[in-house]
Amino acid sequence: MQLYNYFRSSASFRVRIALQIKGLGHDYCPVHLLKGEHKAPDYASRSGDALVPTLVTDEGQVLTQSMAIIEYLDEVHPRPALLPAGALERARVRALAQMVACDIHPLNNLRVLKYLVHELKLDEAAKNAWYRHWVRSGLEAVERQLALLARERAAQGLAPSVLCWGRQVTLADCCLVPQVFNGQRMNVALDDLPLTQGVFAACMALPAFRQAQPSACPDSEA
Amino acid sequence: MQLYNYFRSSASFRVRIALQIKGLGHDYCPVHLLKGEHKAPDYASRSGDALVPTLVTDEGQVLTQSMAIIEYLDEVHPRPALLPAGALERARVRALAQMVACDIHPLNNLRVLKYLVHELKLDEAAKNAWYRHWVRSGLEAVERQLALLARERAAQGLAPSVLCWGRQVTLADCCLVPQVFNGQRMNVALDDLPLTQGVFAACMALPAFRQAQPSACPDSEA
Repeated sequence: MQLYNYFRSSASFRVRIALQIKGLGHDYCPVHLLKGEHKAPDYASRSGDALVPTLVTDEGQVLTQSMAIIEYLDEVHPRPALLPAGALERARVRALAQMVACDIHPLNNLRVLKYLVHELKLDEAAKNAWYRHWVRSGLEAVERQLALLARERAAQGLAPSVLCWGRQVTLADCCLVPQVFNGQRMNVALDDLPLTQGVFAACMALPAFRQAQPSACPDSEA
Repeated sequence: MQLYNYFRSSASFRVRIALQIKGLGHDYCPVHLLKGEHKAPDYASRSGDALVPTLVTDEGQVLTQSMAIIEYLDEVHPRPALLPAGALERARVRALAQMVACDIHPLNNLRVLKYLVHELKLDEAAKNAWYRHWVRSGLEAVERQLALLARERAAQGLAPSVLCWGRQVTLADCCLVPQVFNGQRMNVALDDLPLTQGVFAACMALPAFRQAQPSACPDSEA
């Protein structure tokens, strides 16, 4: 497999975590977003959206969209599982992942920040305020959801979660940790979100997350 | 089941389509977004994000995030299936759905438009230009992806798709059709996207989509 990605792309980071968790070897193929390499014809013609990450399977299939890629990896390489077994529990994990991937990250990616600067003529301070607003309000929602899930688990007599859901890494952790990285990089205050911080710390104690993080990537400029 | 939703919310519309396709009876519980009813304590306290839609199961579980809800419905009520059987095909469908749900819709929902007006002081024309830009560029990407998938199917000897993927309604159709509705409502030119228009027309020929559309909702103001 080949993973086309960028060290700082949080959608790429999600897939890197999943590959590490499952121990799946792959070629790391850097696509430098700031240099516009994702718009080069060779790359852009392979998918409709010309974004990162893309995963090219051993059969040459080009897969796009990070959550879809992770679910594919989970179906083709089911152990260790990145989704729980039960439908309700899977819905819990997917909803947390989507709170990040649909409600936070899309507002802060490069093409949107470029629109703010080039079309709306926002200055650096206003652009950063936008970024921080959506990270902060989105992670506050995640924190409230984690609290609701903790109560639900307690009511069902389940052990408290160490990660987003239970003790096993799930799709939700793959999405949340890169978003916290983005928040930290933009100096978003997150210290008062204890459940989110707890998940982040527990994940970063795992080798898979450390090996997938931006500073560990071949194209890192950190 | 109870579906808390708003007639004009495209994330709500996705779930309404899924419920209609599967023939699942439910109570329609309107939440008027423009009146801020989603922020009322009774509603807001039940989920971390206080958005629509939420689905309350017969067991009283509150499910959030439209794609997670649809996957839950598909797992608990598997016929007719809203995802294909194979892992690659499922990845194709999920990626199309996420091209809408992650790359287009988040930029155009109410809270983001409010930020543009109240925080960034955009006038109506600039707000509408923002809206149209993301719908148009996002659906152009969907159109390119549909063309790539058509070539892939032809190379594999599969019949051309009538809907997003094949002839059966999938999660991708549940996401794409509401997004086209939003584009039409904002007068986004889409006539030159023939594959997207073809999927839209084929879906709207089906009773399930017509019964789920905003104008058919009890709270419709259309």
